[in-house]
Amino acid sequence: MAERIGKNTINLQSKPSIIGYGVAVGKKEGEGPLANWFDKIYVDEFCGEKSFEKAETHLQKVAIQTAIKKAKISKNDVNLCFAGDLLNQCIGSSFGMRDLKLNFAGLYGACSTMALSLALSATLVDSGAVKNVVAATSSHFCSAERQYRMPLEYGGQRSPAAQWTVTGAGAAVVSESCKNTPHIEKVIFGTIRDLEISDTNNMGAAMAPAASLTIGHFLRDTHSIPSDFDMILTGDLGSTGSELLIKLLKAEYGLDISPVHKDCGTMIYDLEKQDVHSGGSGCGCSASVLCSYILDKIKLGELKKVLFVGTGALLSPTSSLQKESIPGIAHAVLITNE
Amino acid sequence: MAERIGKNTINLQSKPSIIGYGVAVGKKEGEGPLANWFDKIYVDEFCGEKSFEKAETHLQKVAIQTAIKKAKISKNDVNLCFAGDLLNQCIGSSFGMRDLKLNFAGLYGACSTMALSLALSATLVDSGAVKNVVAATSSHFCSAERQYRMPLEYGGQRSPAAQWTVTGAGAAVVSESCKNTPHIEKVIFGTIRDLEISDTNNMGAAMAPAASLTIGHFLRDTHSIPSDFDMILTGDLGSTGSELLIKLLKAEYGLDISPVHKDCGTMIYDLEKQDVHSGGSGCGCSASVLCSYILDKIKLGELKKVLFVGTGALLSPTSSLQKESIPGIAHAVLITNE
Repeated sequence: MAERIGKNTINLQSKPSIIGYGVAVGKKEGEGPLANWFDKIYVDEFCGEKSFEKAETHLQKVAIQTAIKKAKISKNDVNLCFAGDLLNQCIGSSFGMRDLKLNFAGLYGACSTMALSLALSATLVDSGAVKNVVAATSSHFCSAERQYRMPLEYGGQRSPAAQWTVTGAGAAVVSESCKNTPHIEKVIFGTIRDLEISDTNNMGAAMAPAASLTIGHFLRDTHSIPSDFDMILTGDLGSTGSELLIKLLKAEYGLDISPVHKDCGTMIYDLEKQDVHSGGSGCGCSASVLCSYILDKIKLGELKKVLFVGTGALLSPTSSLQKESIPGIAHAVLITNE
Repeated sequence: MAERIGKNTINLQSKPSIIGYGVAVGKKEGEGPLANWFDKIYVDEFCGEKSFEKAETHLQKVAIQTAIKKAKISKNDVNLCFAGDLLNQCIGSSFGMRDLKLNFAGLYGACSTMALSLALSATLVDSGAVKNVVAATSSHFCSAERQYRMPLEYGGQRSPAAQWTVTGAGAAVVSESCKNTPHIEKVIFGTIRDLEISDTNNMGAAMAPAASLTIGHFLRDTHSIPSDFDMILTGDLGSTGSELLIKLLKAEYGLDISPVHKDCGTMIYDLEKQDVHSGGSGCGCSASVLCSYILDKIKLGELKKVLFVGTGALLSPTSSLQKESIPGIAHAVLITNE
């Protein structure tokens, strides 16, 4: 049974488990520092498919199938799948779901989707409505760049605050609580925050204020301080957004998270050597880091308490052309090994 | 507490209530047969805003504010809002949520979004995780046509099976069970079905197979027959899709729903006089019909048991250009007055 804590946080008394998880990534991610933790690395950016969009679907399907296999359940045991991605009308997810034939609830949370899907999955498992739920998401550098920014062939110069969309997908199977697995104890759904950043090459700055709000709310609701956590892990703020988040949390809540803060966007690539400027981004960024390295470390007990904060920028090329600023959102789940 | 019934259906033992609902629509909808049931009708297709996309956001905000007002609660009492729409990156919803400052979980279910958002809202309320949840969605003829099909100025001829995207938004506040309100008793999340329809001017045919699957599963899981319902209400199959659905259910499950079947797409317009060919479509179609006429009739006791089946076509212009067929999905909620 779930109960509300404070104004925004939900405590899941049954502590649903993440019983399996999987990641499939592209070549550049497979050359980064987390390569050894990924289940599958594709050197072909098409993953054997005929378009970048179909390649993204391919990655998401492989991540889901891997997660289900590692959970030691069958596809027929899955009651529901929450998935979404960055593509128009979320076709990265829907065409994968068509082939997998799972009950499917589509989400759109931009790069916050992994946290959003985990939060909903865990809440539904805790309610007894479902037993096994898959949470999944994906992004692909080539499908995202040509949709959001420029044709790939254009070869435009990138600004210092720009991020590199991760080619990758991650999936997790959330199920009834069981031993020796990571548990989702608490979840918080975010509120949009928009401090009128309108530079679409500086997503970190657009999302940092929303991350500050969600982390501030969560710590207030749970009467926690940063040192209560082994890690406060943001999704894809990059180095620019991470610096801003740390400053904002100090200024707005008097909280210093710098000793425990990590960001998936700065972890997935070697920022010095891989020419990715501020770091990785995209739905697949946090999904790939969480559903490999982080969940492995929690399972091994090397991390005991991680607040995973997915960050999303809810813009579209149309809203930017219409001179709108960039609304940011952050959802979070508390994952523990107890 | 929720329990699974059969393979796919979820029974919500607390029977969450719809305590308020609201609809805002455009001119053409305001000239149709349901005009008297709508809360707000705009004759200006821009709703006083500077773009069609911002007009859609405006409609969704008005529908949500109306639903909250009619629920006799304050915006601060709302724990979460599920919303989505047809626009790229769901900007119809996200910019509304930015202004309303509600905790926000974004959905993408194409035209099935109203049923998906109600299903998730009711399941979360039943779980105790939240008390008051808003479910909302919208569409706009002008923003949808130019994104999915042709520039409006082109004035392309429309095929007989084509549908007319509804300019409208609907919202409902789902809360803990209370007397004299419509109740959500059961929900079912759909599976994608794709019978390889690829004509983007015949969405009804693309979605009817998914509706047949979800209705078939629901009736099987609950050991029901069509005459157990006052109405089985599909979202936006139009006249073409409705005929197909009735044939499919007879052929696939031996079920004749024709005496109780209605479709929001054929109800919102006068198909003879309003030149809308097969009927209305879009997220706002089922939302506008459900959150006005239908919920009013349930509240009054004139309808006692309605299976509301939202239907969605999960394509994008990109997937169609890449020669993909159209994946359909249908989610359903059982709404009663008991």
